[in-house]
Amino acid sequence: MMQREVAIERGEAGTRRADRDRVVIEAPLQLRARGAPVATIMRTPGADLELVRGLLHAESIAGAGAIAQAGEDAVEIDVDPAAFARRGLLASAACGVCGRVAIADLEQRAREVAADTRIAAVVLGELPGKLAAAQQVFRDTGGLHAAALFTPAGALVELREDVGRHNAVDKLAGWALGAGITPADHALLLSGRAGYELVQKAVMLGVPIVASVSAPSSLAIELAERFNVALVGFVRGDRLNIYSHAWRIT
Amino acid sequence: MMQREVAIERGEAGTRRADRDRVVIEAPLQLRARGAPVATIMRTPGADLELVRGLLHAESIAGAGAIAQAGEDAVEIDVDPAAFARRGLLASAACGVCGRVAIADLEQRAREVAADTRIAAVVLGELPGKLAAAQQVFRDTGGLHAAALFTPAGALVELREDVGRHNAVDKLAGWALGAGITPADHALLLSGRAGYELVQKAVMLGVPIVASVSAPSSLAIELAERFNVALVGFVRGDRLNIYSHAWRIT
Repeated sequence: MMQREVAIERGEAGTRRADRDRVVIEAPLQLRARGAPVATIMRTPGADLELVRGLLHAESIAGAGAIAQAGEDAVEIDVDPAAFARRGLLASAACGVCGRVAIADLEQRAREVAADTRIAAVVLGELPGKLAAAQQVFRDTGGLHAAALFTPAGALVELREDVGRHNAVDKLAGWALGAGITPADHALLLSGRAGYELVQKAVMLGVPIVASVSAPSSLAIELAERFNVALVGFVRGDRLNIYSHAWRIT
Repeated sequence: MMQREVAIERGEAGTRRADRDRVVIEAPLQLRARGAPVATIMRTPGADLELVRGLLHAESIAGAGAIAQAGEDAVEIDVDPAAFARRGLLASAACGVCGRVAIADLEQRAREVAADTRIAAVVLGELPGKLAAAQQVFRDTGGLHAAALFTPAGALVELREDVGRHNAVDKLAGWALGAGITPADHALLLSGRAGYELVQKAVMLGVPIVASVSAPSSLAIELAERFNVALVGFVRGDRLNIYSHAWRIT
């Protein structure tokens, strides 16, 4: 179960129709060391034991013998929980707010995006080209992700780049907060895939429309659906897939 | 300073020449809360204050007033360090082994890859096509990263996919460890960009050749150089860029 079908609206050459699309599943796997939760890995289900074994090896924490028990959503390992803190694994792989608790956590901290901002599909389709034209460093190195805010009329408001997708959005958010911009009137365009963390950052910023040139994950769609955000993927020329709140795309 | 020039060997249509390439810089930014290191963010330098502000906002930790002092490699914030642990931010953004200490840390745990494995450039060029042909779920969803081991003759040994790039490599490593495969005779192909963490995982596994269809980061190149790993980027048909240990590519 690495993928699942979702209902989408598919836009193509000016037409719109209800359709189905397959999206990759993103779901949490909890690591427990002698009963204590030490890390939650967001992963695509499947080969979970290999994942844990490879991770424990890469971090020099333990060998295969340490894996005591494996369930659907959790793997129990016979290792001192302190080993994880020592290796900083909590740092790179854990996530206190991810998975099933992600939506509940965000409900504590954020409201659904109230603005009724909409954007035309034809305008959305032009945004990736505008982003690419403005992305100087990417052209030189091919190594940078970008996040940009656009007005519903398609004007580029601001662009930030980083080797990390999440960092690019954090930089853009920091700019918007500092500039007093209210992104409730804007669309956020991502140069990479749309995972749940990116949608979470958009919700925290109050952005009503998140568009990506690539694929969304299952959890990103759930989060967008819950918080009144239109999530659009595979925005390429006159084609796009709408995964949530299609009414925002006119 | 978001990029820098490095010396590479550029392969094209069967020819090879020394050239220069620009790579995106990946470097650590330490967050200190009242003097205590609470997180290390791997980021591309630039807009650091925006990055921290956006991150603190997204995690509901603090507003702009909390940012007390900013240096080149560290940002000091006036927040109780416990707030980071509570929010699981250490989880998603910190990294106990990253940045300048990454190489020193790995020297404690791993040796440089001793095998003198080589692979022909013409064989490398064919690997992305073989990977794509084998990547069933990606074809359906467009949302999965893949990591695969190949023999120097270009035979696909094993492939793993995941919504996360790091997870795909961990799954592959876990498989190899379980199967008793010695990847010292293999090349690792990545469907995405090659950051330092992926090279680190390859070193831990003893893989001598890491190839990517996309761009490497500055830190990934340094790590590969130090640990005797050939790092090859932008492998596309008869073109490729060699960033370290070019002698492995024949």
